[in-house]
Amino acid sequence: MESKLRFAQDLIRDAGNYIRQGLGKDLAIEAKSRFDDLVTNFDKETQQLIVSRIQETYPEDQLMAEENDLRHPITDGKVWVIDPIDGTVNFIVQKEDFAIMIAYFEDGVGQFGLIYDVMKDELYSGGLGFPAMVNDKLLPVFDNRPLERSLVGSNGSMYAQNKRGIKDFIDHSLGVRVYGGAGISMAYVLKGRLLAYFSHLYPWDYAAAQIIGDCLGYTLLTLDWEQPDYQTRQMVMFIPKSYQQELKNYLT
Amino acid sequence: MESKLRFAQDLIRDAGNYIRQGLGKDLAIEAKSRFDDLVTNFDKETQQLIVSRIQETYPEDQLMAEENDLRHPITDGKVWVIDPIDGTVNFIVQKEDFAIMIAYFEDGVGQFGLIYDVMKDELYSGGLGFPAMVNDKLLPVFDNRPLERSLVGSNGSMYAQNKRGIKDFIDHSLGVRVYGGAGISMAYVLKGRLLAYFSHLYPWDYAAAQIIGDCLGYTLLTLDWEQPDYQTRQMVMFIPKSYQQELKNYLT
Repeated sequence: MESKLRFAQDLIRDAGNYIRQGLGKDLAIEAKSRFDDLVTNFDKETQQLIVSRIQETYPEDQLMAEENDLRHPITDGKVWVIDPIDGTVNFIVQKEDFAIMIAYFEDGVGQFGLIYDVMKDELYSGGLGFPAMVNDKLLPVFDNRPLERSLVGSNGSMYAQNKRGIKDFIDHSLGVRVYGGAGISMAYVLKGRLLAYFSHLYPWDYAAAQIIGDCLGYTLLTLDWEQPDYQTRQMVMFIPKSYQQELKNYLT
Repeated sequence: MESKLRFAQDLIRDAGNYIRQGLGKDLAIEAKSRFDDLVTNFDKETQQLIVSRIQETYPEDQLMAEENDLRHPITDGKVWVIDPIDGTVNFIVQKEDFAIMIAYFEDGVGQFGLIYDVMKDELYSGGLGFPAMVNDKLLPVFDNRPLERSLVGSNGSMYAQNKRGIKDFIDHSLGVRVYGGAGISMAYVLKGRLLAYFSHLYPWDYAAAQIIGDCLGYTLLTLDWEQPDYQTRQMVMFIPKSYQQELKNYLT
């Protein structure tokens, strides 16, 4: 498994280089489901780069990826889960605060996950039997800090709507932060900048963070306290395992 | 005036170095008005460093500053406006996304402003007769991009409450961003990452951005469409001048 992880680390950095080198070029931008759900030629080209390298190197493996309807279920065999650009709006408007994410499963069990904050050149990785790192530094295990000394990340509209009571929870913290990308937001949880993160996500948005966070004391659950289904878009939370009881006092 | 600007640029970078060198040390944290309104020994020490250097070099000049009740009115003579650490909560919890800000006025007229994003080592500066720069790069003049292709920064609770209609406005953009510091948020407006920023601010929170932004096509107004009073805490917006009419369609 270690050589597969090395392969993935090299691949995600190469994909990041590809994006950085293209930043000056014109973007072709299309709306998907609505005006603020955007995709660019870079999302598609970056996915193609990642997919083709995986297919060349591991021709038996399967794929679930954001673009092009690649939807192999994670429970069946060796499956790569890919988000070529997470935070596409940030990528388009800000040229910062977006990430590439890759996760790898065998028969439904997460083996390793990678989140690459492209512009900061920070690669978060970890998994079963691998230390959780950002670049060459160990990530901290959750330190049990109290809510009132912490910041919490959220999707802006779920916070504003107090969806299921998450605003009530967050309002007992030092404040909400809205960065606009699941990848970088969950990376900030892993780093300790945020205590938790709430959003409405697809499997490729949360797979890598769930795997990396597991050995650091974090879990990813739906707002119904269930394991995510790895198929549909769901309202989920990435939280310290030790906060489940406290959260139950707020979430309805 | 140019030598005064150079003095201020050197001073703010020295203050940033002071903070960066102290990051590993223990913080003494106190609550001010409520549990999430915090001040640290670093806010006070950094302000003292800035104030004492100004007093040594320009003994006739006056001061308005966040800590220690320095409140000389900007309309009276030569006045420095200082925020030693803007985004104190980010400073405490994240060790990132905080800024030092300095603005300089003569008889109420802003001469120059400085925002220093300490951890990114990015110094925004500009003023009357000075180019608006981030480090050695010119900042862009506002490019008239449309709301539906832009991101908007806000104080999280003003957004959630739809204060005066700002959520209605922001919901026609690509999304809200909440970074938790006026200084870095307004720096992101100046850089083009955000179209506008809404918050509830003191004079030292907005003085520098107002001066730098003026020649780039931005203005800072209260939500009542008035000039801020430079005395009290007010709900303000930092917006492109050309958006005033469009905003009037949303703001109540």
